[in-house]
Amino acid sequence: MELLTNNVWMMVCTALVFFMHLGFSLLEVGLTRQKNAINILFKNVFIICTGLLLYCLIGFNLMYPGSFIMGIIPDYFVGLFGLHAPVADGALDLTYNEGYTYWTDFLFQGMFAATAATIVSGAVAERIKLSAFMLFSIIYLAFVYPIAGSWKWGGGFLDELGFYDFAGSTLVHSVGGWAALVAISLLGARIGKFGEDGSSHAIPGHNVPLATAGVFILWLGWFGFNGGSVLSADPSATSLTLVTTCLAAAAGGISAFLVSTIWYKNYDLTMFLNGILGGLVGITAGADLMSPTDAVLIGLIAGILIVAGVALIDKVRLDDPVGAVAVHLICGVWGTLAVGVFGSLAGFDQFLNQLIGVAVIGAFCCISAFVILFAIKRSLGLRMETHEETEGLDIHEHGMDAYAEFAGKAEPVKQ
Amino acid sequence: MELLTNNVWMMVCTALVFFMHLGFSLLEVGLTRQKNAINILFKNVFIICTGLLLYCLIGFNLMYPGSFIMGIIPDYFVGLFGLHAPVADGALDLTYNEGYTYWTDFLFQGMFAATAATIVSGAVAERIKLSAFMLFSIIYLAFVYPIAGSWKWGGGFLDELGFYDFAGSTLVHSVGGWAALVAISLLGARIGKFGEDGSSHAIPGHNVPLATAGVFILWLGWFGFNGGSVLSADPSATSLTLVTTCLAAAAGGISAFLVSTIWYKNYDLTMFLNGILGGLVGITAGADLMSPTDAVLIGLIAGILIVAGVALIDKVRLDDPVGAVAVHLICGVWGTLAVGVFGSLAGFDQFLNQLIGVAVIGAFCCISAFVILFAIKRSLGLRMETHEETEGLDIHEHGMDAYAEFAGKAEPVKQ
Amino acid sequence: MELLTNNVWMMVCTALVFFMHLGFSLLEVGLTRQKNAINILFKNVFIICTGLLLYCLIGFNLMYPGSFIMGIIPDYFVGLFGLHAPVADGALDLTYNEGYTYWTDFLFQGMFAATAATIVSGAVAERIKLSAFMLFSIIYLAFVYPIAGSWKWGGGFLDELGFYDFAGSTLVHSVGGWAALVAISLLGARIGKFGEDGSSHAIPGHNVPLATAGVFILWLGWFGFNGGSVLSADPSATSLTLVTTCLAAAAGGISAFLVSTIWYKNYDLTMFLNGILGGLVGITAGADLMSPTDAVLIGLIAGILIVAGVALIDKVRLDDPVGAVAVHLICGVWGTLAVGVFGSLAGFDQFLNQLIGVAVIGAFCCISAFVILFAIKRSLGLRMETHEETEGLDIHEHGMDAYAEFAGKAEPVKQ
Repeated sequence: MELLTNNVWMMVCTALVFFMHLGFSLLEVGLTRQKNAINILFKNVFIICTGLLLYCLIGFNLMYPGSFIMGIIPDYFVGLFGLHAPVADGALDLTYNEGYTYWTDFLFQGMFAATAATIVSGAVAERIKLSAFMLFSIIYLAFVYPIAGSWKWGGGFLDELGFYDFAGSTLVHSVGGWAALVAISLLGARIGKFGEDGSSHAIPGHNVPLATAGVFILWLGWFGFNGGSVLSADPSATSLTLVTTCLAAAAGGISAFLVSTIWYKNYDLTMFLNGILGGLVGITAGADLMSPTDAVLIGLIAGILIVAGVALIDKVRLDDPVGAVAVHLICGVWGTLAVGVFGSLAGFDQFLNQLIGVAVIGAFCCISAFVILFAIKRSLGLRMETHEETEGLDIHEHGMDAYAEFAGKAEPVKQ
Repeated sequence: MELLTNNVWMMVCTALVFFMHLGFSLLEVGLTRQKNAINILFKNVFIICTGLLLYCLIGFNLMYPGSFIMGIIPDYFVGLFGLHAPVADGALDLTYNEGYTYWTDFLFQGMFAATAATIVSGAVAERIKLSAFMLFSIIYLAFVYPIAGSWKWGGGFLDELGFYDFAGSTLVHSVGGWAALVAISLLGARIGKFGEDGSSHAIPGHNVPLATAGVFILWLGWFGFNGGSVLSADPSATSLTLVTTCLAAAAGGISAFLVSTIWYKNYDLTMFLNGILGGLVGITAGADLMSPTDAVLIGLIAGILIVAGVALIDKVRLDDPVGAVAVHLICGVWGTLAVGVFGSLAGFDQFLNQLIGVAVIGAFCCISAFVILFAIKRSLGLRMETHEETEGLDIHEHGMDAYAEFAGKAEPVKQ
Repeated sequence: MELLTNNVWMMVCTALVFFMHLGFSLLEVGLTRQKNAINILFKNVFIICTGLLLYCLIGFNLMYPGSFIMGIIPDYFVGLFGLHAPVADGALDLTYNEGYTYWTDFLFQGMFAATAATIVSGAVAERIKLSAFMLFSIIYLAFVYPIAGSWKWGGGFLDELGFYDFAGSTLVHSVGGWAALVAISLLGARIGKFGEDGSSHAIPGHNVPLATAGVFILWLGWFGFNGGSVLSADPSATSLTLVTTCLAAAAGGISAFLVSTIWYKNYDLTMFLNGILGGLVGITAGADLMSPTDAVLIGLIAGILIVAGVALIDKVRLDDPVGAVAVHLICGVWGTLAVGVFGSLAGFDQFLNQLIGVAVIGAFCCISAFVILFAIKRSLGLRMETHEETEGLDIHEHGMDAYAEFAGKAEPVKQ
């Protein structure tokens, strides 16, 4: 009976993590310009579909290999639709994973996989070639994400070391965040973002209500992202996780709001929203280890890091339209290290383990992302032509308009 | 205890199916013009409210009659709020339906009922009279949907024949799809859709971000639509169903995207979205019978059918603003037949049974829809006046504007 | 095992109640003008974050005090992060609350707390100073809401009297509604709402699709709001509650639609939507006590009250942009009294108890809200300057635009 309930909880969480992809879509589309809205939606729709299929074909078996070659290279068999083999081996046995089934496990983890690529999507918005982004996502999703994940969640060397990452501050958010950082470095800023005199120009998002809806949906999704990472319906662990998750989100929002209000003399909604996301990413590595007070403190610091991080990215002349690097990379690193500072595992040794995990995954992701993106840049090209970027990716890549009738829009296209 | 968990799962699924009505609303409103946005929202809000009340009053007892007259006509008692009688008879007995309660059963099925009428709503958008649509929906929801459903899910002759329809590729989606086809044939195309020279003009939707949100919400809702159709929380069956559902959606999206990109040399987001929906409708009849590979294949074929189906509808000069016929009828038929081709029931006999089910339900729905709509056309009239359609249904039916302040909008109305 | 399932259900309901905050955000933003959209979103984001943190710090212990001084004043200890003490006392004991944990209890109740302040947010939209609203919300959330709640849900004197309020028609919705009424009385109407000649001018909302999405999300959230108020996963009670909730919503919508169509000769979507919300608020006090027929009748009356209530508010020259007073106060009172008229507790004595509860909570909330708001008015000031209100709160409070590129919008702000 316990098995039944565990599986129901995990399926509910899977649905919630799936729904995060709408959250990301709306957040990204809301914070960018309408001339690129279709393009952003397309990328997000592409990623969830591709992510699931690739995870079925390759990722799941690569991430949970059972054994490793030299402790590092996952030893797995990639068959056509690798899911088949384990099923034959009794995957439908209800005792699998204390009662949630093999299928639930696959789907829950598959929803996570797609998240990493989605994070990149926001950072490179409004200037990357769609084909380049799709190619990068496929390779990153199929190989980099599952291999990085296998080192901890698949029982690899980081797991043996004692590195802790409950729901993926590092394994999901930083894996996406590092790639985002490498990508915006290689891509360069959007036209008009930085003046010749070195000045920085804010490029406001075209639909803030949708962006706000995106953040609410992401927060909702985090109930599943962290709550499901308990991998059972254990009442204490799941409910404590939801409490720490929500308190960190609230504290992250409030501190980003306060700091940005003091700093910029302005009630900045975007900072508030990114503060919430920063709090959520920050708590993710240790959501099951923290007391409510710990969670609030982790969130408060994450909120400060968001405001400082966004300013820093801007200072070094990187262009991250949605603040993805501050949210997912900076707060992902913070959350991972926080496991050594707060909560039941806190201690110097643990902090060192966390630091090693951050460094190893960071190096692996940066190098991988650089190699893939550099190869694409030299072959396919990474960036849209100048006139295409100026006129908008929607017209040039999609021949469509996100809002065909709103002001300043072109006439309906004839077929 | 098992009963407790079964009921929780079914209630969660009920909530998710309810939420699909927002998905349909946003999809339909996003893919049509802003001058008709209020009208479309009104229809969707009307249908969920009317659908639940009618299902309480008539539909539930009509669909699950217990016995039939001559195996075809459901033998039921329609009392005022027919729900009362069974309650007195011990409906709250926890052993009902292996533990999910009579109330859960009613609500879950009631949410399904409203879906069929919603499908029609999209196809007839931007030109049907609101009163005509409301009248049609009431009759179709109260009688046609439950009678068609009773033949299989109520234990009627199609069930005895061996026809299989797990969650309603035919009983929900085609029932709506056939009515949509009849309705757009009787209604005619929107003004400006087809030129005098026979040319076809795309009429772009006014808010693609909302349409995309609608598809994500529909996909989420399908976790409940298919997952709940297991009618228990059985771990293997529910989780396998979620996996096949999601893989078919992903595969449907990817194949529609690839085919339309090759065909139209353009990354068409609308095709991608409809491909996902096609995959979802396609897997619905056999989501519990398929392996992941089967699900992917069913989805891939559904995606191709979407691109071809949309082109075909256009070719025969039918005007379906949201692609409802391709998604719900064509992929509904495909999904139903696929039960005879893929998965654990596959075989020639099963294929024949599926074909019979499709034909019987198709004939019943087409004739019913035609009779109802033809009677309305001759009495009330089906279609808005030309100047009303040109100026928009929102002004003429509702005296309201969906976006009162955006470009080209009328001045605020004085009371 | 039962404990496991109870806790899962309560966590799912908690997530759904959280999601209502997006519903409120979209409803309020959709029904007001775009020049104030950021401001409205900001308030809603602020409230969920502040609400959770305050409930952790003060509200939870204040609302469930264990004992009272003179039966009225909750006897509680407010420590820094009051959650700590009970945890030390074994809060993680699984037998707490029949199996849903202390953490789940806190989070579920915390989500409710934030709702009361959100209700006020809509009524005072487009003219209140953000700082004034934030200050009011903090005090109201920290003290007024939990003290009022303690009198019934915390086991106080209204509970001993026999007052019944299942999920908060009075304790949540009226508590918000009374404050909304006092606030709009003190604030005055928006510029242009009422002419010098006493005429009333409708100020149409700028994004009705978002408002409609908000209502669907609120309805979905009510599955958790009422379903979770059973405080267990008891199959009969939870599923009956969902049925009565949905039928009342549907009936409320249909009756508001019919009455407003007869009255105004116009298919008014806003009335339809508010009728649904009225039905939901109306059933909330007795959702577990009613038969389906009772629920439909309560909903039908709620829908009529919505149309009449909105007209009445307008008649007395109060300006409530989203109809919050009609929905949450009038239907909240109606729903509370309905417990004495319909369902298993109906009777004259119960009706009197309900009346006393409505009056006591009403007096407490009106006086509290008046004192707080009057003090703010005299110190900080409640209302924006005339030119700020005319030009929009978004520019003046936030320096941002909700839709930076849509018609008539200012140029992007330079940093």
